[in-house]
Amino acid sequence: MLLRSLLLVLLCVGAHLQGYADDGYRLWLKYDQLADAKLRATWQAQARGIAVEGSSATLQTAARELQLGLQGLLGRPVPVAASGGKGYIQLRVAADPALGKEGYRVVSEKNGLTVTGPSEAAVLYGCFALLRHVQTGQLPTKLNLTSQPRVQYRMLNHWDNPNGTVERGYAGSSIWKWQELPEVIDPRYQDYARANASIGINGVVLNNVNASARYLTDEYVRKVAAVAGVLRPYGIRVYLSVLWAAPRVIGGLPTADPLDPKVKAWWMARTNEIYKAIPDFGGFLVKANSEGEPGPQDYGRTHADGANMLAQSLGTHDGIVMWRAFVYKAGSGDRFKQAYEDFQPLDGKFADKVLVQVKNGPIDFQAREPFHPLFGAMPRTPLVLEVQLTQEYLGFATHLVYLGPLIKECLEADTYAQGKGSTVAKVVDGSLEKHSISAIAGVANIGSDRNWTGHPVGQANWYAYGRLAWDHTLSSEGIADEWTRMTLSREPAAVTAITQVLNQSRNIYVRYTTPLGLHHIMGQNLHYGPEPWLAQSARPDWTAVYYHKADAEGLGFNRTATGSNALALYAPGARQVWMNSTTCPLNYLLWFHHVPWTQQLSTGRTLWNELTTRYYTGADSVLWMQRQWEQAKPALDPALYTDVAARLRVQHREALWWRDACVLYFQSVSKQPLPPGLPAPTRPLTEIKEQVDIYQLR
Amino acid sequence: MLLRSLLLVLLCVGAHLQGYADDGYRLWLKYDQLADAKLRATWQAQARGIAVEGSSATLQTAARELQLGLQGLLGRPVPVAASGGKGYIQLRVAADPALGKEGYRVVSEKNGLTVTGPSEAAVLYGCFALLRHVQTGQLPTKLNLTSQPRVQYRMLNHWDNPNGTVERGYAGSSIWKWQELPEVIDPRYQDYARANASIGINGVVLNNVNASARYLTDEYVRKVAAVAGVLRPYGIRVYLSVLWAAPRVIGGLPTADPLDPKVKAWWMARTNEIYKAIPDFGGFLVKANSEGEPGPQDYGRTHADGANMLAQSLGTHDGIVMWRAFVYKAGSGDRFKQAYEDFQPLDGKFADKVLVQVKNGPIDFQAREPFHPLFGAMPRTPLVLEVQLTQEYLGFATHLVYLGPLIKECLEADTYAQGKGSTVAKVVDGSLEKHSISAIAGVANIGSDRNWTGHPVGQANWYAYGRLAWDHTLSSEGIADEWTRMTLSREPAAVTAITQVLNQSRNIYVRYTTPLGLHHIMGQNLHYGPEPWLAQSARPDWTAVYYHKADAEGLGFNRTATGSNALALYAPGARQVWMNSTTCPLNYLLWFHHVPWTQQLSTGRTLWNELTTRYYTGADSVLWMQRQWEQAKPALDPALYTDVAARLRVQHREALWWRDACVLYFQSVSKQPLPPGLPAPTRPLTEIKEQVDIYQLR
Repeated sequence: MLLRSLLLVLLCVGAHLQGYADDGYRLWLKYDQLADAKLRATWQAQARGIAVEGSSATLQTAARELQLGLQGLLGRPVPVAASGGKGYIQLRVAADPALGKEGYRVVSEKNGLTVTGPSEAAVLYGCFALLRHVQTGQLPTKLNLTSQPRVQYRMLNHWDNPNGTVERGYAGSSIWKWQELPEVIDPRYQDYARANASIGINGVVLNNVNASARYLTDEYVRKVAAVAGVLRPYGIRVYLSVLWAAPRVIGGLPTADPLDPKVKAWWMARTNEIYKAIPDFGGFLVKANSEGEPGPQDYGRTHADGANMLAQSLGTHDGIVMWRAFVYKAGSGDRFKQAYEDFQPLDGKFADKVLVQVKNGPIDFQAREPFHPLFGAMPRTPLVLEVQLTQEYLGFATHLVYLGPLIKECLEADTYAQGKGSTVAKVVDGSLEKHSISAIAGVANIGSDRNWTGHPVGQANWYAYGRLAWDHTLSSEGIADEWTRMTLSREPAAVTAITQVLNQSRNIYVRYTTPLGLHHIMGQNLHYGPEPWLAQSARPDWTAVYYHKADAEGLGFNRTATGSNALALYAPGARQVWMNSTTCPLNYLLWFHHVPWTQQLSTGRTLWNELTTRYYTGADSVLWMQRQWEQAKPALDPALYTDVAARLRVQHREALWWRDACVLYFQSVSKQPLPPGLPAPTRPLTEIKEQVDIYQLR
Repeated sequence: MLLRSLLLVLLCVGAHLQGYADDGYRLWLKYDQLADAKLRATWQAQARGIAVEGSSATLQTAARELQLGLQGLLGRPVPVAASGGKGYIQLRVAADPALGKEGYRVVSEKNGLTVTGPSEAAVLYGCFALLRHVQTGQLPTKLNLTSQPRVQYRMLNHWDNPNGTVERGYAGSSIWKWQELPEVIDPRYQDYARANASIGINGVVLNNVNASARYLTDEYVRKVAAVAGVLRPYGIRVYLSVLWAAPRVIGGLPTADPLDPKVKAWWMARTNEIYKAIPDFGGFLVKANSEGEPGPQDYGRTHADGANMLAQSLGTHDGIVMWRAFVYKAGSGDRFKQAYEDFQPLDGKFADKVLVQVKNGPIDFQAREPFHPLFGAMPRTPLVLEVQLTQEYLGFATHLVYLGPLIKECLEADTYAQGKGSTVAKVVDGSLEKHSISAIAGVANIGSDRNWTGHPVGQANWYAYGRLAWDHTLSSEGIADEWTRMTLSREPAAVTAITQVLNQSRNIYVRYTTPLGLHHIMGQNLHYGPEPWLAQSARPDWTAVYYHKADAEGLGFNRTATGSNALALYAPGARQVWMNSTTCPLNYLLWFHHVPWTQQLSTGRTLWNELTTRYYTGADSVLWMQRQWEQAKPALDPALYTDVAARLRVQHREALWWRDACVLYFQSVSKQPLPPGLPAPTRPLTEIKEQVDIYQLR
């Protein structure tokens, strides 16, 4: 009878799950039962129950999350109680000056494990750390997990529009259902909050930096407040991007001049209304006087005038202003220098609550950029590092590119601002310049696709960003390993095969798209696929030739003293690394130098031969990625295996597209023969151009 | 030990399903085990297995679908074999002249049930009919289900763009992942095919009528072919919307003149390439010379010239051209008449493979329209009826509106073209005018939201459309009952409460938005929310005042002989119904008459009092819908209950918005007091206008 019941249960489950498989919805929070019975038993003894002191929403959330995870991993009920005896995990808020505001401590004590921290959110983070420990198959012996975040504001930036589209989003529509809010609370909001809290993200900007004024109206503040209510128990605060022209567009004022008293009063009143609805509202993100957006410069004011007025409108509320430095004017010299030239002179002029948000590199989220010259150059201003998790220039949702190495590369870059060791990380976490506030922002790759990120491995970028925002000293490789074991498989050979792919993937992508420091040669209207021949656009700095400067003599953008001299924006120590074309690391060569096609590089090859070799080996490496993935197959969920395998086929086809496009186009300029051993592309450039054009049609 | 195993299974399931609940993904194909053990046993005896003769993809699909459904419903394995004995269900293709091409027969025979039909698709339809029979709790006794479709081409039209957005879509992004195709085949494509096949839909236009030329390129044809490969085993053919200018945009020709030999040759070649890749390709849908789209009139040619050239390009391939009649020019009199004036004179001039696709009403998918005057007026041309399932003008995904009654109202409307009884349905199914081909099209409400349609009850509109496309004699109420029992609950009181809501929902929506024949007074840039005051736009026929003509004297559009005389487009019998303002059914009154505010209507109230009473009772009726839904709560999945309950709260808030907007605005013109008993709106019109404006900001 029991056997029969069991059979029926299994049948029902089978039918019920039909179509579900492992569809990626659970992200890295996969609390499937631990396979190792001994390990399970060991943990079971340490997790007879959960005792939580206090009834606040966040503590209760922490207990519930821990319960949910442990029940799954250990395969038996784990009750939550107000108190408990031996073998119970104790959750407790406790003052601990060594932990800052959000640090946690998970330790084995006489009666069992305790998770403590100086705030409720800290305890929540501790619970997720404990779950991660169990989930990755580690032992409870002499447990002592202690950690605190190095950066205070760990932000996700959503570029989501009110109509549900996501600018540069490749994972379906926005997860925010504005039309349905505030009444309809999509259960997904809570799952989103869980995922973020599990990696320590504590702030989210809900809307696109190309902002609609809607969000500042009472109508939308009610909607935002409903979302905030779901995120709050997970220690996450909401922020809004603002349209600078809002006082005109929805306020009925004739101007948005930041020095106009009526404008100031309008912002003050709006801010007060927002805080009435959302007492822990986080503040504002602003894209002003950039790519057609309005801003204080429309009224002859500076970015500082604008940012400071907005900071003032926050009054005594606990909020901040993140003011983006992503600005560039049409046709004013080297775009590389423009944000620096606009913002560096403003250092020291920003109010206390203002942070300036700077992209990792000087152009725009290219596959590899030198660090942005503003880092280290504005010591009196806290700078937010903005990285892009959505793969705008890195293959959308079809190319497997793990961004851990890209983010680390920027964080570890040495600005030499205060001598050797003045890394971007130390600028960002405030330690170098002794700032009391610090922030980091990732442009989210999240959409309403069932698996959240389109490409299943895109989840790793969300994960890695959160982990690095918490602790930038973690290694990219360690995070890849952790994510793989939590998300895909704990089988050692599979973990090895997959993490090798993750760790190489970004370099491979660079090789077949923009090797040796090439940049911004992608399809203009799409930011996907190659378009190095693009010479005409509404603005010269939207073309490709502006950046690669290929001519009969050579290739690359001379940014030395004989060229645009952008290198002069860097501190001497940093400049030194890049300034000489014969010693400049090859990964940055064409960022800074116009190099003759026939110049011999450190590899022993000429520029032309090195360039083409990289395009060919890069494309071939995708076949290696396919083989590695195939090796991991036995350890993977079949649907997931199939999905990624298919994406790797797209990736190879398109790697060849990039290779052929760039090799043939640059060859038309260089007039050089392909090095021996590299087979010539079998299609003409005209055919590739047609294909690129297709993807740019309406 | 077994108990422990069972417990563990249940725990795992609990954890595994965490976040799934009943999320609507399965649509009406919910094969949960029948609760009635006796009924289950009865069916088990009739379904010991499935025997299928033949190995074609569609027959194997039929067997697999039947197996999947029966295993879920009956809670035990149902093997599929090449042959089987007593109690096996036999699936067999068998000639049967009485069944047409796609009709099926499901009958009890001596050795068991047989499902037969003259084609493989027919057998598949029979399997779904059998499943529906089991799923709705009916008995196998003397089973004889025989049915054949009344309309040959039963189409879904997707208004989906290459970038993943959906024009007028309210359920997330497009389900078609063009960037990832052809390599990545989203498992969802198959579930989409299953759902369509289960209701008899046999053709889908994959892309927006405002078409991109991309789809006609080899690059995209490969993608389309991959989708076609998934749909084919389910008896579904793919079609494409075409951009008329394609020969110029992607063909490199200087013109798209349909009479130009090079243009003809280009289309012929393209069509041949498509058929090489997709041998069962269905054909083309065209929106030409409409709302800025290019068309043959750009070259001084007629719609017939264009359609016939395209039909010619199909050559001997088995394909059709559906040419849309949705055209209207700026400022040329009454928009109501324009499609008629452009197309009626072309009757008899279209080639054999051309059908003209006509919206249900003369304006544009309003909540209620008189039937389109072209129905019955083009007897020598097969007409496709186009209805809109996506709720562009009917509350997006937040208002519960079951469209069965709307579709039926149009199908049953009498054109009087060949005397009484010349219904639209008979025009569309070809029986009235003896056409050899017939078609019907529904503009899909499908997106990538987990539940497919945004509003869970939106699924009922997809379902009802498919069922009516198959058999327009089915009743809207019967379909509502069937859908409810398959999708939500079989509990009788719940079914009653819910179906009452479904059946009333469209009339209620009309009452609080556009009672008495008002139309096109919604927010211009959004088609959501009220904007009856809109008087300025790029075109007069995009304003609201153009349609309601409110003035000091009265309200409504005089389309009688003393006005635009649009009524003259109808046959005398049909015209007769509407032509007299004192006998015109009130639901159509303001479509055809400018009626004094103080005119006494058949209800005994003045126009003004009737109008305002309808706005108030309409809004109040949403509270009744809420109470009905609450009554059904015990029988519903909790997550689903909560979701719809929340949407009904949005709906009530917005019904009051519509009510107050329209009552206050029309009162500003009529200067009439509200009838006794109706409380005046508590907010001024200016406040409502501001709110409407917010939703129309970028």
